[in-house]
Amino acid sequence: MTKPLGFEKPLGMRDILPESLAKQRHLERELRACIERWGYREILTPSLEYYDTVGAASVTLTDRMFRLLDKQGHTVVLRPDMTSPIARVVSSLYQDVPFPIRLFYQTNVFRAQEKEAGRNAEFFQTGIELIGDGAVDADAEAIALAVFCLRAAGAETFRIAIGHVDFVEGLLEETVSEAAVRSQFRRFLYERDFVGFRQLADELDLAPDEKKRLHSLLRLRGGKGKIQEARELTVNGKARRAVETISSLWEALEAYGVTEALLLDFNLISNMDYYTGVVFEGYAADLGSPLLGGGRYDRLLEQFGRPAPATGFAIKMDRLLQVAPANEQPWKKPVQVYYTDEYRAQALSEAQKMRQAGQVVVTKRVRDREEARLWSEQDDDAVLYV
Amino acid sequence: MTKPLGFEKPLGMRDILPESLAKQRHLERELRACIERWGYREILTPSLEYYDTVGAASVTLTDRMFRLLDKQGHTVVLRPDMTSPIARVVSSLYQDVPFPIRLFYQTNVFRAQEKEAGRNAEFFQTGIELIGDGAVDADAEAIALAVFCLRAAGAETFRIAIGHVDFVEGLLEETVSEAAVRSQFRRFLYERDFVGFRQLADELDLAPDEKKRLHSLLRLRGGKGKIQEARELTVNGKARRAVETISSLWEALEAYGVTEALLLDFNLISNMDYYTGVVFEGYAADLGSPLLGGGRYDRLLEQFGRPAPATGFAIKMDRLLQVAPANEQPWKKPVQVYYTDEYRAQALSEAQKMRQAGQVVVTKRVRDREEARLWSEQDDDAVLYV
Repeated sequence: MTKPLGFEKPLGMRDILPESLAKQRHLERELRACIERWGYREILTPSLEYYDTVGAASVTLTDRMFRLLDKQGHTVVLRPDMTSPIARVVSSLYQDVPFPIRLFYQTNVFRAQEKEAGRNAEFFQTGIELIGDGAVDADAEAIALAVFCLRAAGAETFRIAIGHVDFVEGLLEETVSEAAVRSQFRRFLYERDFVGFRQLADELDLAPDEKKRLHSLLRLRGGKGKIQEARELTVNGKARRAVETISSLWEALEAYGVTEALLLDFNLISNMDYYTGVVFEGYAADLGSPLLGGGRYDRLLEQFGRPAPATGFAIKMDRLLQVAPANEQPWKKPVQVYYTDEYRAQALSEAQKMRQAGQVVVTKRVRDREEARLWSEQDDDAVLYV
Repeated sequence: MTKPLGFEKPLGMRDILPESLAKQRHLERELRACIERWGYREILTPSLEYYDTVGAASVTLTDRMFRLLDKQGHTVVLRPDMTSPIARVVSSLYQDVPFPIRLFYQTNVFRAQEKEAGRNAEFFQTGIELIGDGAVDADAEAIALAVFCLRAAGAETFRIAIGHVDFVEGLLEETVSEAAVRSQFRRFLYERDFVGFRQLADELDLAPDEKKRLHSLLRLRGGKGKIQEARELTVNGKARRAVETISSLWEALEAYGVTEALLLDFNLISNMDYYTGVVFEGYAADLGSPLLGGGRYDRLLEQFGRPAPATGFAIKMDRLLQVAPANEQPWKKPVQVYYTDEYRAQALSEAQKMRQAGQVVVTKRVRDREEARLWSEQDDDAVLYV
C-alpha cells in the first residue's frame, strides 16, 4: 500500500482519549452509585432503532436525529435519546411488570450535525425514568434525585430551574387570542430572547393590563415567593392548576431538603409537544447551556400501547465534565519493572504481587544491566531484576 | 393516535434488561480493575466511522460489517471492532506518544446479521492493544493478561489455545505446491473440519510421507511436548521459525506461571490476512465458540502511516456472561419507606440516611395508615412513617 489510509471521521464524531475518559468513567461511577440507591435499575437498548418505531415518538426533533439508510432501504436512527426506547421496553418486554417502574441508563446518544465546527454528534448521558406514577411526589423524587446526582458528581455551584408547560400556555391563552402569536411568544421564551418577547408584547393591540401581565411573566423567576406572584397573574384553570402543582411540588422538595439548589422559573419552556407538566433544567455557573434536562411526559407511553404517566431526566456528561472538579485519583505513571532473562520468573511474579496489592505495573525485558540502567534513569520508581 | 407504534427493532438488535446488564457491568468492572493494573489506559472511538478509513483496515470481513448510508451518500460502518480505530488514533492524535503504547477498551461493536433468528448485531467487548513491541515478551504479556482477565471474571474452566499463522502456512508450502489447494486446506482448518482436511490429504497425489505430515498437523494440539513434535514436522524456514517463536513464547509464559491455563494448537487458524504471527483463542467448557480472540498484527499500523508491531485481544462479553458464575451481589428488593403527609420530611430524611449507609430505598407517599398497612403487607422490610 502506497497511500496511507486517512484519519477522517464522520461529522461530529470524536475520539475520547484516556485522560478525559478516565474522568468521565469516574463521574459515571459516582452517578451510578447514587441512582442505584434510589431503587433504579440499569437498562440498555440498541444503538440502532427503526425511525418509524422509536424515532417517531422521540423528544428529539426529527431533523436533529442521526438518520441512516440500512441495506434494505429502511430509515434507521442512531438512538437520539433513551426515553422512547425505554417506553418501548416498558410496553413490550416489561408489559407485565407493575408500576411504578424505576429505570436508569448510562450510555451514548446521537444527534445529526450539519456544520464542520463544533458540536458532538455522539455524546453520553446518564439518566433516569420513573414510569407509572402521576403524583407530584414522582416529580419531586426526580428533581431531588437530580440534585443528589449533581452533588455526587461534585458539581457544587449548580441550580435546577423548575417550571410547568401549562403555566406559560395558560397565561398566553388568557392574554393572546391568536394561536400564531402565542407561538411567537413561546419561541422567544424557548430561545430565551426576552427582548424580543417584550417588543412583541408592546407591539400588540392589547389592554395595558394584559401587556403588564406578559411583562410580569418574565420576572417569575426566583424562590418560593414567586409562587404567589404567579398565582396572582393567572385567571384561567390551566395556568392556575399549574401554579398549584408547582406549589405542592415545592412543599415536597422542602421535605427533601433540596430547595437551596432549586429555582422556580415560570417562563421555562422545553419541548412542549413532548412534556406535559413539570419541567426542569440544571444549570451550572460558567456554563451557558443546561447540563441536565427533564420533566413529565404523560403521553409517550400510550403511543406504545401502555398508557402511563412518567417523569425523568438526563444528565449531559460532556457538560458535567466541564463543571465537575478534577478526578481525585489522577492517573499515575506505572511502576516499571526491568528484568534480564535469568530473573524473568522472579520479576514477573513480583510484578503480579504488586498488582494484587493495587499497584499499576508495567514489565520490560532488557538485554543486560547496562540497558536496565539506561531505562531506569528515566524513572524514579523503576524496579530492577538484573 | 389510534394505532400504537410497533416494537420492532432492526435485525439482531436487542434490549438488555437489568438482571443481565447488572452481571455484565459486574464483569466489566472486574476486567477493568485487572487490566488497569497492567498499565493499560482506556480509550473510546466513535460508534460510526467511514468505511474507507477504518472499515477497509479492519480484521472484520467486509460483508460482515454493519454498513449504512449517511445523508451525504457516504458508506459508513458501525465500528466492527476497536483495533483499527485504535490504530488510527495511535497514528494521528497519538503520533508523538512513544512506543510501547498500552490501551484498552470496553464498549460495543457491530456485525451485520442477515437472518431472522439468532445472532446479535451489536455486542460488547473488553479488549487490550499493546502497540509498538515486536518481542515475544509482548505476545506473552497479552496472553498472560488474558488468563488473569478470565480468572478475574471468575471463569474457572477455560483454556487459551496458542498457534502461529506461519506454522500452518509454512507446512502447507512445504507439502502442497498449488496455492488453491493450500487455500482449501486452510479453509478446512478455519472451519475446524478435520474430516474434510483428512479426505483432501488422502485424495491428493502426494508421497505417503507428505500425506503423513499433513495428518500429523491435526494432532499438534496439546502441551509443551507438541513443540518438539512440530519442530520435527517442519523443514522450511517459515514454519521452523514459527516453532521457535512458540518455543520462546512458552518459556515466557512459564515465567508468568500461567501455562496450566494454556494449550498449544499448531493448527489454529484465524483471519490470516490480518494476523501476522502468534494467534490465540480462549475456550470455556460448555461453550462451542471462543470467548476470547487475539494475536499479533504487525501490518495494520503501517496502513495508517505509522508502521509498528502490535498485539492484543478481545473478550466477547456475551460469551463470558454465559460461563462466569452468577453475580455475587444479586439485586435486592429495595427497602420500601411509606409515609403520610405529616411525616414526609422525617421519612424522606431517614430514607436518605439509609441510602448514605448503602441501602437501596424507595419511598412512597400514602393517604393514611390503612393504605400504608395494605402496601406493607406485601413487604417484609417496609418502613412506615404514619
